[in-house]
Parts: sequence; C-alpha cells; structure tokens
Amino acid sequence: MVNYSIQLDTTFSALSDPTRRAILSKLAKGDMPILELASPFDMSLPAVSKHIRVLEKAGLLIRKKQGRVHYCRLNAKPLRDAAKWLAFYQQFWDAKLDSLANFLEDSSK
Amino acid sequence: MVNYSIQLDTTFSALSDPTRRAILSKLAKGDMPILELASPFDMSLPAVSKHIRVLEKAGLLIRKKQGRVHYCRLNAKPLRDAAKWLAFYQQFWDAKLDSLANFLEDSSK
Repeated sequence: MVNYSIQLDTTFSALSDPTRRAILSKLAKGDMPILELASPFDMSLPAVSKHIRVLEKAGLLIRKKQGRVHYCRLNAKPLRDAAKWLAFYQQFWDAKLDSLANFLEDSSK
Repeated sequence: MVNYSIQLDTTFSALSDPTRRAILSKLAKGDMPILELASPFDMSLPAVSKHIRVLEKAGLLIRKKQGRVHYCRLNAKPLRDAAKWLAFYQQFWDAKLDSLANFLEDSSK
C-alpha cells in the first residue's frame, strides 16, 4: 500500500510537466532515439535529458542502447494505477452542477 | 490548449502528494469542516492548511464559510481532464509484456 502510494506520487509528479507529457506523447508513436526525441523541444539537450531521467525514474520510459544509439520506449503500466485512482472520482465529476451552486449559494448567506 | 495544459500541470502536481490525495478521499465522503478534515493527519494545522490551499488553487477543493466554520467540498471536475489524458495511454498499458521483454532483450545484445 505504501509502495502503491509512493508510485502514485512519482507518477503524478512526472506527469505535472508539459515537456514530460509531450515526450510520452511522442513515444506513443513508437520507440525513438534520444536525439530525435529531444529535437522538437525548445531547450538544451541536457534539459530534455533531465526530463527523460525523471520519466525513467518513474518507470514511464525505458532506455536501451543499440550500438551507439540510445533508444527510448514508453512504458505505460504505471499510468494504469494513476487512472484507477482517478476513476473512483468519476462519480463526483459527473455530479450535477446544481449541487455545487447550492453549496456556494449557502456560503454567501 | 495552453490553459488545458496548465490545468493539467496543476492537477497532476496537486495529486503528487499522499496527504492531498488523502484529503480528497476524505472529502469524497462528504463536505467537512477544516478542523475535522485536518484532525487525522499527523502534522500541524498550518501544514494541512497549506495542502488544502494547494488543492483549492488547483480547483479540486472549494471552501465556504458558514457562521464561524470553514467547510470544504470536493470539486472533482479538474480530475476529468486528467483522466481523459491518461485514458489515451490505456492501449499501451494493455499491450503485451512480450513486446517490452523483446525490447529489453535486444538491448542486451
């Protein structure tokens, strides 16, 4: 349970940055060498590499070396637990807005 | 699109802490005065209040004052976009482990 919670911390934290989400989105199209993965971002290679390391540490990206080229692959499995955690709240985001309006109206009394 | 991305940053960041997730989980049971919400956590009231403010800023918690009591309510709507973002990756976490094993095997050659 503790490990599950720590993994959620790491997953959600990794997803809280737009560059890291964009990297995952690029990898969804297929495995990619690091240089190709980094090229569209308006930042230095070390800066992108730092984001790649965060994703790697979170288990969302797997790196392998083939000859002299480093390839990256998406590993979406940790996203499953994050999605499961969120799914519980679906009952609340589907709730009627009326309820929120009443809550806020009450507070102005 | 930019706003959508910023909201995702804020939502995922807010969810990357176990205390904040626990607060949302408590609020899923119903609206709650801040003091009652804070009581089970092994930290000071100012520390819990800081987490509550992060959730409030992320739009995941709404606060209202009723008389002298501050009530909190869950607002799950921002979680919907986070869940939508994650849902795209379902096709990958359902992918066979064989594919990953092959990828890793290749890299050891």
